[in-house]
Amino acid sequence: MYSLSELQDIVSQSIAEKKFPQEPHLLYEPITYFLRLGGKRLRPVLTLMASDLFAVDIKPAIPVALAIEVFHNFTLMHDDIMDKAPLRRGQPTVHEKWTVNTAILSGDAMMILSYQLLAEVPQQYLYEVLRVFNKMVLEVCEGQQYDMEFESRESVSEDEYIQMIRLKTSVLIGTALKIGAILANAPAEDVEHIYDFGVNMGIAFQIQDDILDVYGDPSKFGKQVGGDILENKKTWLLIKAMQLATGEKLGLLQSWISNRNPHDAEEKVKAITAIYDQLEIKQQAEKLKNTFADRAYQALEQIKAPEQRKQALKVFAAKLLIREN
Amino acid sequence: MYSLSELQDIVSQSIAEKKFPQEPHLLYEPITYFLRLGGKRLRPVLTLMASDLFAVDIKPAIPVALAIEVFHNFTLMHDDIMDKAPLRRGQPTVHEKWTVNTAILSGDAMMILSYQLLAEVPQQYLYEVLRVFNKMVLEVCEGQQYDMEFESRESVSEDEYIQMIRLKTSVLIGTALKIGAILANAPAEDVEHIYDFGVNMGIAFQIQDDILDVYGDPSKFGKQVGGDILENKKTWLLIKAMQLATGEKLGLLQSWISNRNPHDAEEKVKAITAIYDQLEIKQQAEKLKNTFADRAYQALEQIKAPEQRKQALKVFAAKLLIREN
Repeated sequence: MYSLSELQDIVSQSIAEKKFPQEPHLLYEPITYFLRLGGKRLRPVLTLMASDLFAVDIKPAIPVALAIEVFHNFTLMHDDIMDKAPLRRGQPTVHEKWTVNTAILSGDAMMILSYQLLAEVPQQYLYEVLRVFNKMVLEVCEGQQYDMEFESRESVSEDEYIQMIRLKTSVLIGTALKIGAILANAPAEDVEHIYDFGVNMGIAFQIQDDILDVYGDPSKFGKQVGGDILENKKTWLLIKAMQLATGEKLGLLQSWISNRNPHDAEEKVKAITAIYDQLEIKQQAEKLKNTFADRAYQALEQIKAPEQRKQALKVFAAKLLIREN
Repeated sequence: MYSLSELQDIVSQSIAEKKFPQEPHLLYEPITYFLRLGGKRLRPVLTLMASDLFAVDIKPAIPVALAIEVFHNFTLMHDDIMDKAPLRRGQPTVHEKWTVNTAILSGDAMMILSYQLLAEVPQQYLYEVLRVFNKMVLEVCEGQQYDMEFESRESVSEDEYIQMIRLKTSVLIGTALKIGAILANAPAEDVEHIYDFGVNMGIAFQIQDDILDVYGDPSKFGKQVGGDILENKKTWLLIKAMQLATGEKLGLLQSWISNRNPHDAEEKVKAITAIYDQLEIKQQAEKLKNTFADRAYQALEQIKAPEQRKQALKVFAAKLLIREN
């Protein structure tokens, strides 16, 4: 079995060594640039961990792990255009460094490169892996669409929000693990269990992200604390607060939300955080996060693999779910 | 064997009957809208013709024919954004009717839908079909990149231009045929011959398009005659004229090209057409077109199939290459 850091090294090295086509330069350079911006490489590592859970040889899973990472970065490149984001991991986004057209076309090429990597799986797995990958990829687009729609929607229900983050971010986590398991010839039930582990983990992880955006330690949290509040982002916290607030508190919340460009940004963050505190939103969000985390651990429990081999995934999940950044 | 119109009916009906997902509505509606704008359905018909050339049953090729058409329309949807095109087949483009973000994301989803259709091929063909499709799809992106780059380039050589149109439009024609042949269990050499037939046909077709843009009958040509001239588009005609013109003619050509917003558009079209006439550009373009058409027919000759069955492709090619629109 491999340690987490060994798997991370395998992923980093594989990405560094991966030869993409060279010409036309302006099509491929942004792809290399974007992939080299780094990131936690969480998803490809999960593919390898899933494979490692069931198999002695993780090699057949390496190209698919890369396919997952390249696909994930493709979604980021196109999301950055749609969100008009100037920075990604502290560096200029592709549409900023080059042009929107470059980011559209290099993104398209990147999606195709992920399919090329996927097509490197041993032939006998291709049919199933492609089906699973296609389903996930379409769901991620659906999630992004809901996310964009929610921005201009009057209100969003809790269920709609959970469904959106399930599609936008969690099915990718689940699929990363699932494909690793398929390539390791895991039994069909275990393939589904590891998928459920990933999807529920992903949802817990996203809820934690919403919590950290408000309550994170500024010195550890990578983004601006309160960023979601300033954008009026309909996170689970805001959705729940809108649901629970009544009378004066509701009026105050609504008035801060309608104030899109507050004179004092920090004041808005403080005021809304105070309302969250009064409504005990953080505690409820933590509870919900734990519900999904529990579901994830239960799914992991059901997998028929030696406890010792499951330990790696458990430790990794626990590490992700108490992170401060 | 099927007649051309029977194959066209099969394609039209399959597209009309194809059920795409419904929700989120704003993700999928633009896809249906765009596909229903029509078009000649040239590419999927070619897939079915290639299958029909070698096999008695074309059914296994139908989903792939649709994959080819959906993929082609995806490229148009994203190209329209990059070209800031307001209209497509006389109707508003997706980024005009909805938003640029919608056209990016619905386009992405459309590309994935084409992979989902592709994944419907009988399992034993998937490995090869996916490899061939992936290669083509990446080449089409490369072609689009070169096309955009050429716009701002000082000069483009004839060879570069032919390579660009080969990538941007012809490999798709070749691949549409190739996959049809693969699914019909055609011998490997014939799979390559039909690909060569398609690629050379595609190049001939594009050169003819460049000719028609200047010399087409305005009552039959779908687009504005002289449109390429007004856009200073580096077509084969302009590239060749720049190469051959000397002295006064070259000066005149350059001065018209630097005049990007002529007071009288028709005057610019007339003046540049007159230079083309003096340099006999049309005749040379026709000659080049025929060179590629001949290569296409030679490739078709080499295919080991009864002459009678090849007739359909020959007639179709001939019809395409003397079109006026």
